[in-house]
Amino acid sequence: MSVTSALQSVLVDLVDLSLQAKQAHWNLQGPGFRSLHLQLDEIVEITRVASDDVAERIAALNVAPDGTAGRVMSDSGIGDIATSWIKVSDAYDIMESKLQTASDNIKKLIETVDDQDPLSGDMLIGIATDLEKQAWMLRAASA
Amino acid sequence: MSVTSALQSVLVDLVDLSLQAKQAHWNLQGPGFRSLHLQLDEIVEITRVASDDVAERIAALNVAPDGTAGRVMSDSGIGDIATSWIKVSDAYDIMESKLQTASDNIKKLIETVDDQDPLSGDMLIGIATDLEKQAWMLRAASA
Amino acid sequence: MSVTSALQSVLVDLVDLSLQAKQAHWNLQGPGFRSLHLQLDEIVEITRVASDDVAERIAALNVAPDGTAGRVMSDSGIGDIATSWIKVSDAYDIMESKLQTASDNIKKLIETVDDQDPLSGDMLIGIATDLEKQAWMLRAASA
Amino acid sequence: MSVTSALQSVLVDLVDLSLQAKQAHWNLQGPGFRSLHLQLDEIVEITRVASDDVAERIAALNVAPDGTAGRVMSDSGIGDIATSWIKVSDAYDIMESKLQTASDNIKKLIETVDDQDPLSGDMLIGIATDLEKQAWMLRAASA
Amino acid sequence: MSVTSALQSVLVDLVDLSLQAKQAHWNLQGPGFRSLHLQLDEIVEITRVASDDVAERIAALNVAPDGTAGRVMSDSGIGDIATSWIKVSDAYDIMESKLQTASDNIKKLIETVDDQDPLSGDMLIGIATDLEKQAWMLRAASA
Amino acid sequence: MSVTSALQSVLVDLVDLSLQAKQAHWNLQGPGFRSLHLQLDEIVEITRVASDDVAERIAALNVAPDGTAGRVMSDSGIGDIATSWIKVSDAYDIMESKLQTASDNIKKLIETVDDQDPLSGDMLIGIATDLEKQAWMLRAASA
Amino acid sequence: MSVTSALQSVLVDLVDLSLQAKQAHWNLQGPGFRSLHLQLDEIVEITRVASDDVAERIAALNVAPDGTAGRVMSDSGIGDIATSWIKVSDAYDIMESKLQTASDNIKKLIETVDDQDPLSGDMLIGIATDLEKQAWMLRAASA
Amino acid sequence: MSVTSALQSVLVDLVDLSLQAKQAHWNLQGPGFRSLHLQLDEIVEITRVASDDVAERIAALNVAPDGTAGRVMSDSGIGDIATSWIKVSDAYDIMESKLQTASDNIKKLIETVDDQDPLSGDMLIGIATDLEKQAWMLRAASA
Amino acid sequence: MSVTSALQSVLVDLVDLSLQAKQAHWNLQGPGFRSLHLQLDEIVEITRVASDDVAERIAALNVAPDGTAGRVMSDSGIGDIATSWIKVSDAYDIMESKLQTASDNIKKLIETVDDQDPLSGDMLIGIATDLEKQAWMLRAASA
Amino acid sequence: MSVTSALQSVLVDLVDLSLQAKQAHWNLQGPGFRSLHLQLDEIVEITRVASDDVAERIAALNVAPDGTAGRVMSDSGIGDIATSWIKVSDAYDIMESKLQTASDNIKKLIETVDDQDPLSGDMLIGIATDLEKQAWMLRAASA
Amino acid sequence: MSVTSALQSVLVDLVDLSLQAKQAHWNLQGPGFRSLHLQLDEIVEITRVASDDVAERIAALNVAPDGTAGRVMSDSGIGDIATSWIKVSDAYDIMESKLQTASDNIKKLIETVDDQDPLSGDMLIGIATDLEKQAWMLRAASA
Amino acid sequence: MSVTSALQSVLVDLVDLSLQAKQAHWNLQGPGFRSLHLQLDEIVEITRVASDDVAERIAALNVAPDGTAGRVMSDSGIGDIATSWIKVSDAYDIMESKLQTASDNIKKLIETVDDQDPLSGDMLIGIATDLEKQAWMLRAASA
Repeated sequence: MSVTSALQSVLVDLVDLSLQAKQAHWNLQGPGFRSLHLQLDEIVEITRVASDDVAERIAALNVAPDGTAGRVMSDSGIGDIATSWIKVSDAYDIMESKLQTASDNIKKLIETVDDQDPLSGDMLIGIATDLEKQAWMLRAASA
Repeated sequence: MSVTSALQSVLVDLVDLSLQAKQAHWNLQGPGFRSLHLQLDEIVEITRVASDDVAERIAALNVAPDGTAGRVMSDSGIGDIATSWIKVSDAYDIMESKLQTASDNIKKLIETVDDQDPLSGDMLIGIATDLEKQAWMLRAASA
Repeated sequence: MSVTSALQSVLVDLVDLSLQAKQAHWNLQGPGFRSLHLQLDEIVEITRVASDDVAERIAALNVAPDGTAGRVMSDSGIGDIATSWIKVSDAYDIMESKLQTASDNIKKLIETVDDQDPLSGDMLIGIATDLEKQAWMLRAASA
Repeated sequence: MSVTSALQSVLVDLVDLSLQAKQAHWNLQGPGFRSLHLQLDEIVEITRVASDDVAERIAALNVAPDGTAGRVMSDSGIGDIATSWIKVSDAYDIMESKLQTASDNIKKLIETVDDQDPLSGDMLIGIATDLEKQAWMLRAASA
Repeated sequence: MSVTSALQSVLVDLVDLSLQAKQAHWNLQGPGFRSLHLQLDEIVEITRVASDDVAERIAALNVAPDGTAGRVMSDSGIGDIATSWIKVSDAYDIMESKLQTASDNIKKLIETVDDQDPLSGDMLIGIATDLEKQAWMLRAASA
Repeated sequence: MSVTSALQSVLVDLVDLSLQAKQAHWNLQGPGFRSLHLQLDEIVEITRVASDDVAERIAALNVAPDGTAGRVMSDSGIGDIATSWIKVSDAYDIMESKLQTASDNIKKLIETVDDQDPLSGDMLIGIATDLEKQAWMLRAASA
Repeated sequence: MSVTSALQSVLVDLVDLSLQAKQAHWNLQGPGFRSLHLQLDEIVEITRVASDDVAERIAALNVAPDGTAGRVMSDSGIGDIATSWIKVSDAYDIMESKLQTASDNIKKLIETVDDQDPLSGDMLIGIATDLEKQAWMLRAASA
Repeated sequence: MSVTSALQSVLVDLVDLSLQAKQAHWNLQGPGFRSLHLQLDEIVEITRVASDDVAERIAALNVAPDGTAGRVMSDSGIGDIATSWIKVSDAYDIMESKLQTASDNIKKLIETVDDQDPLSGDMLIGIATDLEKQAWMLRAASA
Repeated sequence: MSVTSALQSVLVDLVDLSLQAKQAHWNLQGPGFRSLHLQLDEIVEITRVASDDVAERIAALNVAPDGTAGRVMSDSGIGDIATSWIKVSDAYDIMESKLQTASDNIKKLIETVDDQDPLSGDMLIGIATDLEKQAWMLRAASA
Repeated sequence: MSVTSALQSVLVDLVDLSLQAKQAHWNLQGPGFRSLHLQLDEIVEITRVASDDVAERIAALNVAPDGTAGRVMSDSGIGDIATSWIKVSDAYDIMESKLQTASDNIKKLIETVDDQDPLSGDMLIGIATDLEKQAWMLRAASA
Repeated sequence: MSVTSALQSVLVDLVDLSLQAKQAHWNLQGPGFRSLHLQLDEIVEITRVASDDVAERIAALNVAPDGTAGRVMSDSGIGDIATSWIKVSDAYDIMESKLQTASDNIKKLIETVDDQDPLSGDMLIGIATDLEKQAWMLRAASA
Repeated sequence: MSVTSALQSVLVDLVDLSLQAKQAHWNLQGPGFRSLHLQLDEIVEITRVASDDVAERIAALNVAPDGTAGRVMSDSGIGDIATSWIKVSDAYDIMESKLQTASDNIKKLIETVDDQDPLSGDMLIGIATDLEKQAWMLRAASA
């Protein structure tokens, strides 16, 4: 797999994570609302910054990145999210799982990327570390 | 049309605008790159804040807002954007047109929303004014 | 009803909301204390700023505004609050109801104010939107 | 009257207010100098920001705005100001009157503007509210 | 007198001071308006912070503090304030007197509070020092 | 007991509090995680600043302060903390108790310190007030 | 020529420069819009600050400065500006020429001013240096 | 006169101005108190910064500067100030006169300093300009 | 001794400390210059703030404070300072001694002040604590 | 060795470094005191942030981190520090050696950690680079 | 090749890049001046920070880094730059090529550096990623 | 000598000063390291800003400035610097001498520049004053 193909698949997951975290931020309900409402906005921020870094790295490698809704719909590797109200306790599990999935997807790509382009490899490692830290904080809260 | 249905259609356009403006931000090419690259990020910021306000107003009216990629794909009223490189001169026209379309869509809804809920009506007016100011700046640059 | 009479009744409700939100901030007890403790201070801040805007608009219309404890006691439209410890779960319901009541009181006045003085009308719309957003966040947390 | 003609007449008044408030700021004399000297700079700031918003709204409607000294001289609706030293007590009355006149001029235009273009109407309401607040503060000081 | 009873009486005076300083801030009239208008907001800020500290100390001592409008009406030790326009020169005397009265009320309580709870005693000393500094500044201005 | 011996025993308790609050911050689990996770970092910050003040006061009195891990191990007056996962509800009780204990330890020393050196006495009063405010907030949350 | 007459003629040019730079900022059209739109606002800011310094120096020399639209109309030494749309490429030439003209006008005055009042002379030197730097940046862009 | 002797005499006047402006700041009485109280602190700040610049320039020329109370007592060129209460109206005249005197003293030295050391000359010009602006503001207020 | 006489003597020492610390800041020479040069400015800042607090407390007690150079010359309790170059190593000892002397002077006054006016007493304790912390830092550096 | 065992041993060293750097910060004596006093606080800050990152990474890997004083005492790999006064020159050598030792300990672990978990490996590399930069600055100063 | 030799060659390229980017920043001419003028200053900032990191890493490894003009002249790997005016369009190509060359030079060194010292390797990867992002932005603008 | 030739020779000295101050910043060794390490970065900052001002003034006078390494090598008027480790005490002398030399070079040019172009003359005076202040601080530290 080429470096830019790998980065493109990460880009899609990150854009989808940012949209789904906002969706959960808006549709949350139940005790513990405020704490998770705020943390979801941190996740939105982290995934937006990360998607920007990845897309600009793809462009720096002379390939056109694609972060449109259509590409997200067809290629996302993190599954759907409900479009109705979401209970706080469910939201912890859902988002923890999606963050971990996105990090796992990245980790499968790291070796092949790192061999061809250590600059991109280093970037992916940093992003996965951030996603797992957020996943842990959600997991700890619902333990 | 109910107030929340109207707001939901605005939400979808705003989320799509934010994704397409980022797409253009990444795929831009040609003379004038930097100026438009920066202005597109301002448009991203304006549409993200506006979509957050609209979604939270929908929730405040006890309806679940939907800003997921799937809903954006099926309901967006601003059309597609290319997923390959975009010339700077084309990008001015494309984004100007989409901003004006989104504002026109809002203006068709204002009267019916304002009659039922002046709080939501006021919010839509503010958003449309901001979109048209951005559209003018793009229009002026390509005149 | 004159514009300034309407604004005066809104002023009283806003001052009372700010005092009661502080009261709840101090007397809260039980699980979830800290999140609500912090949100109540946001509500205090919002209602203080809003009462300042309304009082200065009354003065700008050449009538003396009245936001003293005595006037609040006699005219408030949002009811009393307990003066002993308040359970967190109760506090969510109590403050949500008071915020919604204050917004409903404003919405009954908007048409008559807007006809006579659109400048004051616009101000009240903005305040009610803010109160309802806070009410929704409390409602969401206790759903 | 068209929307852009109305906005153009407001633009001229706002530019003239900013120049005259600076003139008073420089030529003030007598007890109470410093308080009014500082408040006049707030008025300068408010009118500069407002004139920028109005001019850019005119341009967004595809008409060229005119805020040059020549146009201000021929069209201003707020009258002249002395070009010699100004007593502090006189300056309170002069500027209060000019601010109120400018707001009255706007309020005569609001209905016709709002019917044709609610986006511009909303902008004018916000500006008039700010001008009247400043007028009240000057009026209160010379009561 | 118990420590918490003493603190509760200080709390009521401080909340009333903050409401009355705002009332004067809004209803002021006459030359010197702006200087006093601004200083009254400093007094509002100081008394709000102080009332928060005192109320949270009461709660820390396991008694429920009461800062509602009703309690302020019945227990305040600083007297009423006019609800109509207030001349600037009168406002200096009125607020100077109320600040000094509130500080005198605190100083009568310091010895008994300090004997039982030096932590609360220290807090009251700091508050009284601040109130007297503000009183002096008002006194100097009307000398 | 000399002033510096008393201060040294307070120093040890404060350093230990800061380490144990961090430990709890890291090992927390269960509903309410985020609120307490954040508050624990405030406690860490408060105890670090306080230990710095106390240590520099000891040095100012020409005695070498000791805040090393060894001294903390042998002299701490607040007991151990678990080194495995900690339930949120347990953590509230544990840290409330440790904060109260540390404050009680300080209060036993205040009279003797204050007689010999009112400067150090005043510092200890301020620290104990802060610790008890934190203890109250934890207590209120688990009431 | 007296020092204050010289400063008065500089004041008029600076006020006119600030109005004309705003005019160009609003009426600009064509490729390169955004870069010049932003630079024109820097020129507005520089000329506003400079006119304030000059006017207050005139007042400090006990002469009443005049920066009203009427005086600008009759005395300005930098010529008119179009009141319709302005092409970006034209705007570079127009504003470069006006900035250089204003600086040349100042430089003709420096020797006579400096002989009579080195304090005013030093101020004019600083202003002319800033104007020429802006002129160079416009000149470089249209080379 | 040597450059450093000239700078030393300026240093003494600036230190004395800063002490006397503080003295007036504390001992002011009467209507207009707050405005002048605040402006005096601006004068204190300006003279402190200026004295620092001058003293360090003297040191840079390898002479030891002297800004002690004794030297100020013996060499100050701006006269005494009352040590009892000062009426606001008197304070305007007193401080205006002292600022103008200090600037006049500097202007007498500029030519001789500038001939020997243009670096020091330029510094003195900047300081005198600032002092005269403050003097004008005081003069305008008592006109 | 009256409270205000005691405060007046403290005021004089603090003003003198601020002047002498500046003197040392300017005339310092030798290895270690920069560290002490910077710390002396911290001491200047601390003593300026403290003198302001003390002078305003005196005024709040209705006595005119005196912080002029003449009073400092006649009443200062901290001795002279050299007006020529000062070696860094000497400066550590000189300033440490003066800070300790000023604190000792305060400590002799605390009991009598505290008995008559605990508000002033508390203020003096805070100031002496700050002075001794600075003295310790100088002493530690020259040990 | 497992990844979490390795991270746990790094955590202990970092907590100990932060405690020992504070100890040195307080007990320092001799010429050059201030520079090192300040740099030691930078080292404290760096090691606190680093220990927080490492502990949260351990928790993210589902193991409970241990940063208590007891664990530090038994497992620290950087040796003891004196608990009495420390000469500045000695402190440079002592802390340089401890920082280098801690970095060496990390470098021995990097390969095994990086093979199993590149995310943790990247974190350790960043920490070691920071520690060595601090070590170099201390070494350079005592060369 | 040793780690420090590799880092030294990178240091020279980075210092030369910062000087040449400034040179282009000053000598730029033609349409698009302002955008590139600003971006060149970002490149200057990025290369200055990077050269500081590399030089301090060399020193941390106990070798003296060399970033003087002489060493840059003899060893730079990025070629000369014109010393006369530079057309904007040429400057895009010139600087894009130099940034890519500098990154290519780094990438040739990464493997050998990373094997011997992963801390330095990680630093070089981060720098190359930044240089390539800047190169892409220049390339996109001239596509 | 023409104005631009004079400015070009100053530009070269300033660029060389900034490179040599960085070189010293990196290669410093011995007691007193940190204080000088920090001050050298202030000198770097001052010389970078000054070189930018001078180069842009040259360009504003329509001559291409040259600040490349080659020009610095051939034309610098401040001599070489060692490329190996530098003792702190030597570095004080070396950099003091170079700063003074650069200022002396400027002072020789001021009269001829000032006669032809007082705008450039004023700029050079400001730069030389800053360089001499830094030189004095280094000189004082090694006295």
